[in-house]
Amino acid sequence: MEKGFFITFEGLDGCGKTTQAKLLYDYLLSKGFSVLLTREPGGTPFAESIRQLILEPSDEEPNPLTEMLLYAAARAQHVGRLIKPELAKGKIVLCERFVDSSIAYQGYGLARNLELIKKINEVATDNLEPDLTFFFDIAADNCLQRLIKRNLDTNTTLDRIEARGDEFRHKVRQGFLKLAEEEPRIVLVNTTGKEIEAIHQEVIMLLKKYIF
Amino acid sequence: MEKGFFITFEGLDGCGKTTQAKLLYDYLLSKGFSVLLTREPGGTPFAESIRQLILEPSDEEPNPLTEMLLYAAARAQHVGRLIKPELAKGKIVLCERFVDSSIAYQGYGLARNLELIKKINEVATDNLEPDLTFFFDIAADNCLQRLIKRNLDTNTTLDRIEARGDEFRHKVRQGFLKLAEEEPRIVLVNTTGKEIEAIHQEVIMLLKKYIF
Repeated sequence: MEKGFFITFEGLDGCGKTTQAKLLYDYLLSKGFSVLLTREPGGTPFAESIRQLILEPSDEEPNPLTEMLLYAAARAQHVGRLIKPELAKGKIVLCERFVDSSIAYQGYGLARNLELIKKINEVATDNLEPDLTFFFDIAADNCLQRLIKRNLDTNTTLDRIEARGDEFRHKVRQGFLKLAEEEPRIVLVNTTGKEIEAIHQEVIMLLKKYIF
Repeated sequence: MEKGFFITFEGLDGCGKTTQAKLLYDYLLSKGFSVLLTREPGGTPFAESIRQLILEPSDEEPNPLTEMLLYAAARAQHVGRLIKPELAKGKIVLCERFVDSSIAYQGYGLARNLELIKKINEVATDNLEPDLTFFFDIAADNCLQRLIKRNLDTNTTLDRIEARGDEFRHKVRQGFLKLAEEEPRIVLVNTTGKEIEAIHQEVIMLLKKYIF
């Protein structure tokens, strides 16, 4: 069986991973590769309806464990129905967010049981791991600087959500950094102060080490 | 913290567990106990919407693993939101179907990975196990006898669904019997040829060994 190549794109919201995934997708297509671009949460219609169920306002909130299992169910569907079959056809699969996001956001960001998240995700992915992961890192300071500037400009103070938001993003970022240290498949791309095209060229250069 | 008592009712469809659960519920109430009667799949509104998602017709079927994780998510919600809090209040909780049904139906009936089902359910229930389980057993022969009689009466032959259905029920029953052998908490109640009231008295007698 021909074997594809599985690349994931991780990082905080606004780190540029959507843009970079699309640029790499176009680049690989232009080189004649067979490529699939997909994203989580969601990725297939049924996985998307699971996601809707999690996000839908409801009189009864899902418990943290319920939520974890629902995300795992959506991921199991995405992996089993789309990612694995496409890899089996020999495609390059590019996916925005995967298990690392669950670990960084739920584990490090929300301080939920890390071992449990890992265990559930091993089940959900049937042990599929990315061959390569780009983690697009922006300094947490940059978030804070932007926030300070906006608040000085508008003469307001940080509200509770903004304040918690920055602390939360900081924890999530620390989680990603820790994962990048632990997992050789994760490549850190520092995006601070760089142009989109420069980052794209760096991504191609890093990928060449692995795939060409 | 006061500790309740958790009783589950298991068995094939039509084995009489709904009737017996209700009779025991009324009996315990009449004795002045604080009792909750609930059932799976479902049990809370959010768990019920997960169940709806599994059963809803859709262009894309859930994979077996996705389905397993969705049932686990519904169970996690039921346990976390209803069963554990009620037990913590010191209530007797009666529940129709629980983990044993997942093992018997999905593991033995559909020949899916038993270890995986057990592992996922340990996570979903946060290791909660029933204190006592009634397994209402009807001989698989009885199903077959009823089927033969009906087919002779109507001069038809078994269709594929009926044939598979009986074989499936047989496997599920064998699964329950195996569980009853392995788990001391599971009490087998043979219901073949017995009246509802006689079975109810047997249930009370068996319960008295444990709870009074």
